[in-house]
Amino acid sequence: MKLDKLVGERFKERPSDCAIDSHALMIRGGYMKYVANGIFSQYMPLRRVCRKIEQIIREEMDAIDGQEVLFPVVLPASLWEESGRYTSVGSELLRMSDRNGSKLVLGMTHEEACVQLVREYGQTYTKYPFMVYQIQTKFRDEARPRGGLIRVREFTMKDAYSFHTSQEDLEKYYARCYDAYKRIFARAGIPEVVVVASDSGMMGGSISHEYMLLTPVGEDSIAICTDCGFSANVDAAENILEKKEGIEQRPLEKVYTPNIHTIEEICEFLHTPLDESCKAVVYQKADSGEYIVVFVRGDLEVNETKLTSYLGCEIVPAQITDDCPLKSGYIGPYNLPEGIIAVYDRSLLTCESMSCGANEEEYHYVGLCAQRDLKGVEYHDVSKIKTGGICPKCGKKAIEISRGIEVGNIFQLGTKYTKSMNMQYLDSNGEPQYPIMGCYGIGVGRLAASVCEAKHDDYGVIWPMSIAPWQVHLCLVRADDEEARAYADKLYNDLQKEGIEVIYDDRNVRAGVMFSDADLLGVPVRVVVSPRNMKQGCCEISLRDKSLQTTAALDEAVSVIKNIVAQKLDEIKKSADSVVEK
Amino acid sequence: MKLDKLVGERFKERPSDCAIDSHALMIRGGYMKYVANGIFSQYMPLRRVCRKIEQIIREEMDAIDGQEVLFPVVLPASLWEESGRYTSVGSELLRMSDRNGSKLVLGMTHEEACVQLVREYGQTYTKYPFMVYQIQTKFRDEARPRGGLIRVREFTMKDAYSFHTSQEDLEKYYARCYDAYKRIFARAGIPEVVVVASDSGMMGGSISHEYMLLTPVGEDSIAICTDCGFSANVDAAENILEKKEGIEQRPLEKVYTPNIHTIEEICEFLHTPLDESCKAVVYQKADSGEYIVVFVRGDLEVNETKLTSYLGCEIVPAQITDDCPLKSGYIGPYNLPEGIIAVYDRSLLTCESMSCGANEEEYHYVGLCAQRDLKGVEYHDVSKIKTGGICPKCGKKAIEISRGIEVGNIFQLGTKYTKSMNMQYLDSNGEPQYPIMGCYGIGVGRLAASVCEAKHDDYGVIWPMSIAPWQVHLCLVRADDEEARAYADKLYNDLQKEGIEVIYDDRNVRAGVMFSDADLLGVPVRVVVSPRNMKQGCCEISLRDKSLQTTAALDEAVSVIKNIVAQKLDEIKKSADSVVEK
Repeated sequence: MKLDKLVGERFKERPSDCAIDSHALMIRGGYMKYVANGIFSQYMPLRRVCRKIEQIIREEMDAIDGQEVLFPVVLPASLWEESGRYTSVGSELLRMSDRNGSKLVLGMTHEEACVQLVREYGQTYTKYPFMVYQIQTKFRDEARPRGGLIRVREFTMKDAYSFHTSQEDLEKYYARCYDAYKRIFARAGIPEVVVVASDSGMMGGSISHEYMLLTPVGEDSIAICTDCGFSANVDAAENILEKKEGIEQRPLEKVYTPNIHTIEEICEFLHTPLDESCKAVVYQKADSGEYIVVFVRGDLEVNETKLTSYLGCEIVPAQITDDCPLKSGYIGPYNLPEGIIAVYDRSLLTCESMSCGANEEEYHYVGLCAQRDLKGVEYHDVSKIKTGGICPKCGKKAIEISRGIEVGNIFQLGTKYTKSMNMQYLDSNGEPQYPIMGCYGIGVGRLAASVCEAKHDDYGVIWPMSIAPWQVHLCLVRADDEEARAYADKLYNDLQKEGIEVIYDDRNVRAGVMFSDADLLGVPVRVVVSPRNMKQGCCEISLRDKSLQTTAALDEAVSVIKNIVAQKLDEIKKSADSVVEK
Repeated sequence: MKLDKLVGERFKERPSDCAIDSHALMIRGGYMKYVANGIFSQYMPLRRVCRKIEQIIREEMDAIDGQEVLFPVVLPASLWEESGRYTSVGSELLRMSDRNGSKLVLGMTHEEACVQLVREYGQTYTKYPFMVYQIQTKFRDEARPRGGLIRVREFTMKDAYSFHTSQEDLEKYYARCYDAYKRIFARAGIPEVVVVASDSGMMGGSISHEYMLLTPVGEDSIAICTDCGFSANVDAAENILEKKEGIEQRPLEKVYTPNIHTIEEICEFLHTPLDESCKAVVYQKADSGEYIVVFVRGDLEVNETKLTSYLGCEIVPAQITDDCPLKSGYIGPYNLPEGIIAVYDRSLLTCESMSCGANEEEYHYVGLCAQRDLKGVEYHDVSKIKTGGICPKCGKKAIEISRGIEVGNIFQLGTKYTKSMNMQYLDSNGEPQYPIMGCYGIGVGRLAASVCEAKHDDYGVIWPMSIAPWQVHLCLVRADDEEARAYADKLYNDLQKEGIEVIYDDRNVRAGVMFSDADLLGVPVRVVVSPRNMKQGCCEISLRDKSLQTTAALDEAVSVIKNIVAQKLDEIKKSADSVVEK
């Protein structure tokens, strides 16, 4: 490919609307173009990166006995009605009607389509286990697309579904997939991805893991134990809390607190720390608008994922209107007005004397002891683990919170979909059983953006050899020099004959322009041919990651370059082998 | 791949709802599954066929300097409003709204998205020409999906768009693409595809061609001149008609014709042939409901494509209601009621004395001479060419009508999209100009189904080696025989090591079951290992198309099979080279 003919624009300046580096560099480098909110077109360099990622995924899925299939993007609503998700999933599921008024949805995940595909095939136990996967476009009507390809509405995803006759068999297969995923990320150039326990959310099921690329710009929070290595998405991490020592019970007492509206203000007024208070966080059910009050210790935050999963319905932050019996700023767990759904976090049990709202304008209580004062109440874990918190695995106070981008996830789904969609097989005794499912997803574009986030400098992406749009970037400095041009043209052809992917910049532009374009395209090996080097009988070879800068004799350049490419590919292969041995 | 583990069901019987063979065989063979009207999932064998087709297309597009990109499936309505197609395209364009009420459409073609992608890039003449293409899912809300993958609503398509600074340059590129398409179909195993001139329909533009696989089950009609080889879609073929000799003018005369309602009845009543009559065919504008009457010679049919293109609006067959001034059964061109849109076919000029309706209940005219009796009327070509018609190229009466499946199309679009979407470049004089576009489409699934339609017998598909799901189908007859199994297992592994794609049937089933499954999968080379053959020191090798049946010594089987595969691939390559030399 000649750079001169590469469709797409490159920009010197960082676009002002890009919050993260990978987004900015992909716009600057002519990788993609904005079409609509969360919807992008891809230019050739990104398409090539994504196709290489797809091929890596395909090989690893085939290696664990996956069969590539294809599900539709547009699905009949009836399939989602079978599973119950047509109503249970919120507005991220895009619903529409065709010319005959039939209800359709855009596939945002394909459990239903998959069960529909294999329901008749999998009717006897001898067919199991099996796994099918696809690499296909999905659409999720996200409320807040962000970060370029990190969170989009339309994306290409590999989604895989496995079917088993026992939990044990699922776990065996899950472990194979767990390793295959580690290999995929290592082969894509980011072996540093960590695996964390996660919440399975709307997918249903119990055990699930996320593959996280740790980076400050990630939108997920991950709790990692610095002592034992435990890691989990904060959404899924149990928040274990110690009882606060040295607090004596005292009588519950109402206090006049004019002009005090927040938990911070009441603690300041009483000269007590935040963890001796109980705050109220109010939500509403997304469908009915019913109010839900969550009571949690004043120093903690509500974990909305745990809360949603406990409630089993979608929630939104509350808009407290005049007809609501709740007294904004004075809400507390004691004497709560009737008819309000209340959820009590376990943290309320850690302190025997707390301040809280009195459900009366301008009044608070002090001395609340939840166990003594609140009758018939159950306590749940709906708060977020914090830095310095207790590790749910080793029990040490060694939790640190990091940010990460989720680049993949794997779920043990159980029988949620096979039961609701009535997929059964006859076991070896002739008894009907529901197959047990696993599902396994990777977003292709997000993975490309994550690699970019992990591997870049101020001047552009630094692509790993395995997924780079091209392997070699050949720059002919001074295209008007006949001898240099003849050599560069020949090198371009000879490298391609050897199967090397070359992008060739033979434009008549300044070397500076050439090199900054090369930096943006991030091709691993750069070869510079110039009249000055020609005189010394060599060309310059360097690596985009700055780990090598050398020259090669003109007649040895092809073999030197070929070796560098092979060596880089080999390093990545070894890294993939080693992540799984670990 | 072991057949035993291949997900999908195979059926002995032809499903009753399949009108054409390719559809029936693809259902019977476990290639695909119905999901909704015109929407299918693909099992692994079809996915593999389609991926091979995609790769052939990709290679041929790359060879004519195409750059692979990716446009979104979901597009903002605003893009289609720019081109005017948001309103001009009918209900096959699926329109919907997202969670914020923004209007979206599902991409059924991507001219708009493409212009949006390259509009800023292509601002100076030095960037031209260029071509970008994608292979992506499309959705077209067809009124009548049919024939399995032949006419679906959701499909994978390769669509390419080229941009030029002159008509001459477009034509040069168009010719390259014309050849590339011939190569693609030859490489997919159907070099017999014919190229026909076509109507460009809603795409706009002028010159266009369709690639047709001639088959009685095709939904397109193609006019082919048996003398000069001219070919065109009937929709696009000019209908040249001779003046009927020996007809004398006579006065226009009203005749009482009770109980006569059709043109056949009036001709029978008058004892005149159909080509001495003028019939009326009534339509309505799809949007406004206005009536349109087309007058055409009694023996001809209206060509709705030509008519739509002349009118510039969508039409539907008319529902004549009581308040309509038209007298159903008695409509004629003379004294037509006011306010009716009338279209006059050129065929009316071929006969100087015709019968026709009198626009009055129970009356007809005889002796109509259009040129004499109809004032201020223009004549257009809106009728269909028939078998025996005059070739528009050589002028001989040598037209035959065949049926065909359109497997690809290429269009010279002109500036329709660049003008409406305001894409301009500065030419070498610094003057702003609109680029001239071409576009080029191939439906991947339809091509797979067409190959199946062209290459099958009663027992299954006969895949060409280049796109077969696997290259070799290895059957182990009597899986319980230890020696035979050991050999077959080794052959399976050895062939795969040689890069041959093998599907291996080692099930403990009757040979008949095994072979009928093999017929359905249609893999080109079949290898049978059985205890009986083992005794003779050989295995059986045959071709699915019955052109070869042989045996190979056990230690030579790998090389014999490898040679057959290579030879078949080579034959296809040569066929692709020869279609273009023609």
